[in-house]
Amino acid sequence: MNKSLPRIAILGGTGKEGPGLALRWAYVGYPIIIGSRQADKARLVAEELNQQLGIDTITGQENGDAARSADICILTVVQTAHQQALEGIKEDLQGKILVDATARVDFRDPHPPSPPSAARHAQNLLGPGVRVVAAFQNVPAHSLKKNLGSSLDTDVLVCADDPAAAEVVIHLANASGMRAYYAGGLDNAVTVEGLTSLLISMNKYYGTKTASIGITGIDLPRG
Amino acid sequence: MNKSLPRIAILGGTGKEGPGLALRWAYVGYPIIIGSRQADKARLVAEELNQQLGIDTITGQENGDAARSADICILTVVQTAHQQALEGIKEDLQGKILVDATARVDFRDPHPPSPPSAARHAQNLLGPGVRVVAAFQNVPAHSLKKNLGSSLDTDVLVCADDPAAAEVVIHLANASGMRAYYAGGLDNAVTVEGLTSLLISMNKYYGTKTASIGITGIDLPRG
Repeated sequence: MNKSLPRIAILGGTGKEGPGLALRWAYVGYPIIIGSRQADKARLVAEELNQQLGIDTITGQENGDAARSADICILTVVQTAHQQALEGIKEDLQGKILVDATARVDFRDPHPPSPPSAARHAQNLLGPGVRVVAAFQNVPAHSLKKNLGSSLDTDVLVCADDPAAAEVVIHLANASGMRAYYAGGLDNAVTVEGLTSLLISMNKYYGTKTASIGITGIDLPRG
Repeated sequence: MNKSLPRIAILGGTGKEGPGLALRWAYVGYPIIIGSRQADKARLVAEELNQQLGIDTITGQENGDAARSADICILTVVQTAHQQALEGIKEDLQGKILVDATARVDFRDPHPPSPPSAARHAQNLLGPGVRVVAAFQNVPAHSLKKNLGSSLDTDVLVCADDPAAAEVVIHLANASGMRAYYAGGLDNAVTVEGLTSLLISMNKYYGTKTASIGITGIDLPRG
């Protein structure tokens, strides 16, 4: 663990996406807090991830406690839990960056969502004291957990009204082996949310599991 | 010109996107009809394109006549002209594939559109006798016109309720140097439409003009 790195809380971090993100950042030295509605469950998942990496720097806390302890918070709940999760930690998030990774899709009946985006909804609910950034909605969970030190063959579209907050998240994505691009304000995030349905359709049609989005035509150094 | 290839009408084909698509397909032997509300304008653009390629296989006709003469029709009008264009050629399109390439974005105030997609709207308006396919909404017009025989560094997401119709369009995209993927039904096209706003945001932020979307994680042979 590198003590100069920001502390990252992964709220709702016991689901499918959260542990994979936790592993990637813990692997490169970030202090990680797994958040859950139940502190016991959070600690259990944190302990499993520590064992997997042979480290002891991942801790588990109740979501609100995790948010208060962290510099940057990542919300990885499912769509149906989104509003309730945000209402429960609104005060704990003030002054921080909240990265909303909510995949807004019904896997039984996938179709693109209507505006506003989940992240716009979060920003409206949390108020101007929280800088909301939308990112990581489409990163395949099972890809995150493999080859932790290697680059992922997926690009992250980062939407935020505050480009400086987006750049913090782009840096985090780069640190975990993902190329990331600033893709405009929070309203644009509804299109990133909609990509989930397209990727599901493509995987079904082509018999794959790893369809993902890439960006071409912009030369970025790999972070 | 290869007489065994289907005849392609590019309706509203005198704008920014149409001539580039016409050049690519004419270059590889497809017979092309440029359609316009004004037959004179269509013929003028057709003649310019013929001269550019040193051929005489591109013709120009009024939109309805062009649609009736063609096997496959591509609609490349701007969003504001979409409904009126469709109403004018509804009968001419019966029994054919209509590829809707409408970029549904206000370039002065880009933001993702709400469902339904332009292509779903087209399908509802045209009825079940026309097989609507959504494709080519995000292909940069100025990339189309360069290096006609070379592959483009852009992927085309093809949405259609009828996958067989989508495969016809995937084949057309491949023939013109673009990789293309079936990305689900017409409702999914609203997300492809929304990508235009993201690409505009990315080009503005990174000072580029060629930001485009690629698909990773699916192995396709280049067509």
